[in-house]
Amino acid sequence: MKLSELGEFGFIERIRQAVAKAPGVAVGIGDDCAVLELPPGERLLTSTDLLIEDVHFRREWTDMGLLGRKSVSVNVSDIAAMGGTPRYLYLGLGIPDGLAVEELDAFVAGFLSACADYGATLVGGDTCRSPGPLLISVTVEGTVPAAELVCRSGARPGDAVYVSGTLGGSALALRRLLAGETPDAEAAGRHHDPRARVELGRALAAAGIPSSMIDVSDGLLADLGHLLEASGVGAEIDESALPLSEALQASLIDAPNSIELALSGGEDYELLFTVPPERESLLAALAVPVTRIGRIVLAAGLAVKQRSGTLRPASPAGYNHF
Amino acid sequence: MKLSELGEFGFIERIRQAVAKAPGVAVGIGDDCAVLELPPGERLLTSTDLLIEDVHFRREWTDMGLLGRKSVSVNVSDIAAMGGTPRYLYLGLGIPDGLAVEELDAFVAGFLSACADYGATLVGGDTCRSPGPLLISVTVEGTVPAAELVCRSGARPGDAVYVSGTLGGSALALRRLLAGETPDAEAAGRHHDPRARVELGRALAAAGIPSSMIDVSDGLLADLGHLLEASGVGAEIDESALPLSEALQASLIDAPNSIELALSGGEDYELLFTVPPERESLLAALAVPVTRIGRIVLAAGLAVKQRSGTLRPASPAGYNHF
Repeated sequence: MKLSELGEFGFIERIRQAVAKAPGVAVGIGDDCAVLELPPGERLLTSTDLLIEDVHFRREWTDMGLLGRKSVSVNVSDIAAMGGTPRYLYLGLGIPDGLAVEELDAFVAGFLSACADYGATLVGGDTCRSPGPLLISVTVEGTVPAAELVCRSGARPGDAVYVSGTLGGSALALRRLLAGETPDAEAAGRHHDPRARVELGRALAAAGIPSSMIDVSDGLLADLGHLLEASGVGAEIDESALPLSEALQASLIDAPNSIELALSGGEDYELLFTVPPERESLLAALAVPVTRIGRIVLAAGLAVKQRSGTLRPASPAGYNHF
Repeated sequence: MKLSELGEFGFIERIRQAVAKAPGVAVGIGDDCAVLELPPGERLLTSTDLLIEDVHFRREWTDMGLLGRKSVSVNVSDIAAMGGTPRYLYLGLGIPDGLAVEELDAFVAGFLSACADYGATLVGGDTCRSPGPLLISVTVEGTVPAAELVCRSGARPGDAVYVSGTLGGSALALRRLLAGETPDAEAAGRHHDPRARVELGRALAAAGIPSSMIDVSDGLLADLGHLLEASGVGAEIDESALPLSEALQASLIDAPNSIELALSGGEDYELLFTVPPERESLLAALAVPVTRIGRIVLAAGLAVKQRSGTLRPASPAGYNHF
């Protein structure tokens, strides 16, 4: 079916009917605004992301269902990075001529399935025609108890630096796709269907463990750079301690320089956080999949201890859009 | 200056420095999320809009400062339509190659000036490259005391239908621009720099006057159609009662069919609302610039009483993006 047969309001009505009623939603899709009742005493967290065809994704590399899921996850990851609970999402779509309703339905189904995974609900949005690429704009609102909020700015000299999960899988998949190859399934999964670390972020924040936190979207060094700048400190990272994705470990045999993908590759959507020494035992007691990769130092700047033992100054190079 | 010289984070830092500290903002631009403290007992209102070059605007018809202002106003208008106070805005920008930093600075200055007009603050966003058109994504958060919320769904048979200000100016300017002509200054102002009726919306809501309300963005009949559908009622509108913009009144002399611009033209950003008979005296006491244009009836559907006296059924035709 063509979208012109269904119409803008027909499409919105289809989405509205697919969304279940959720707690706290006084008015959802279908009025001028969503109207929400937040838990008393919690802070509102809001983040917004643009995903633009041929900048953030290519339609020939992904399917629309996974693209819908990823649109949610990359946005929700920002809530996780502050220790929050994602609650409400807004979806803006700029739709190119000729995109079939079936493709849009698959996108929306993926979007809603990811919302459900995170316990969040789609409550509003905007749809219009795009004269060029497919445009996706997502805004997420979450909440966090005021005392449990974790910012980028709290790292102090002596804190340990930790990262969750593994690094480099998404960037390795992207490198393969750009070379016209088929990525390994694990890496492809990390690239096309990343998971925001919401439960981990909540657990860390509720236990009062991190002094600062950020998610790894631009790349480990770039995001650590943001955190160091906000905190006014420096860091030393141990390259040999980095938790590498299985596919990246395998690729290192033939291409040792691939380690750069773990340092600067981006889109891992893991949590990068700092822990004061006296709280490291609390972290160990949580038994969560995290790895100590370095420490915060007083002097500004970022140094990477290479496998050879040499300490090299690193620039926090990550993805810069311009 | 080229944006590539300033960089993504240089551009964001420029914006951050231009934004003043505002009440309720625990963390603004520069972390994973904005962190906000809302007034206790109020409901959160959120709306999001996309503005896409060559769909919603043309760069040769407007200047970037006014485009920044309009991006705020069309979004804030949705808060006004529910009786709320706009508080926090988020700006997503997809920036085409070659757009000068000076143009972006003008856009941001316009955006911030409109935020200030409405007492609202920019607290977050996302910037990236666009492979095609300039893309603007705006999200606004506002609040409203729970008892003063006005929805689309409360209109009842016997209620009077009112609209604020004047209609048709924006659509008349657009018609002139599409014909390659220069629009009249009043109409051009309505098109390029519309004002959201925030104070009026708040005054109406605080006084408990409207049974339902919506803003006129798609066109009077289209938006009234949305309101009627949400309320499960119909309406009769008196064409001769419509408050026409001065430029539209003048154009009617040569082109009587221009009345369609007031009925279906869109982008007036006036408030359209219904008032139960017993509250019309309260409205009169408020002494606000509003006009009674018709009444709500039990039977579904929308009829327009023409200047000739004939009642014709009207389809709620407005802007459909597909």
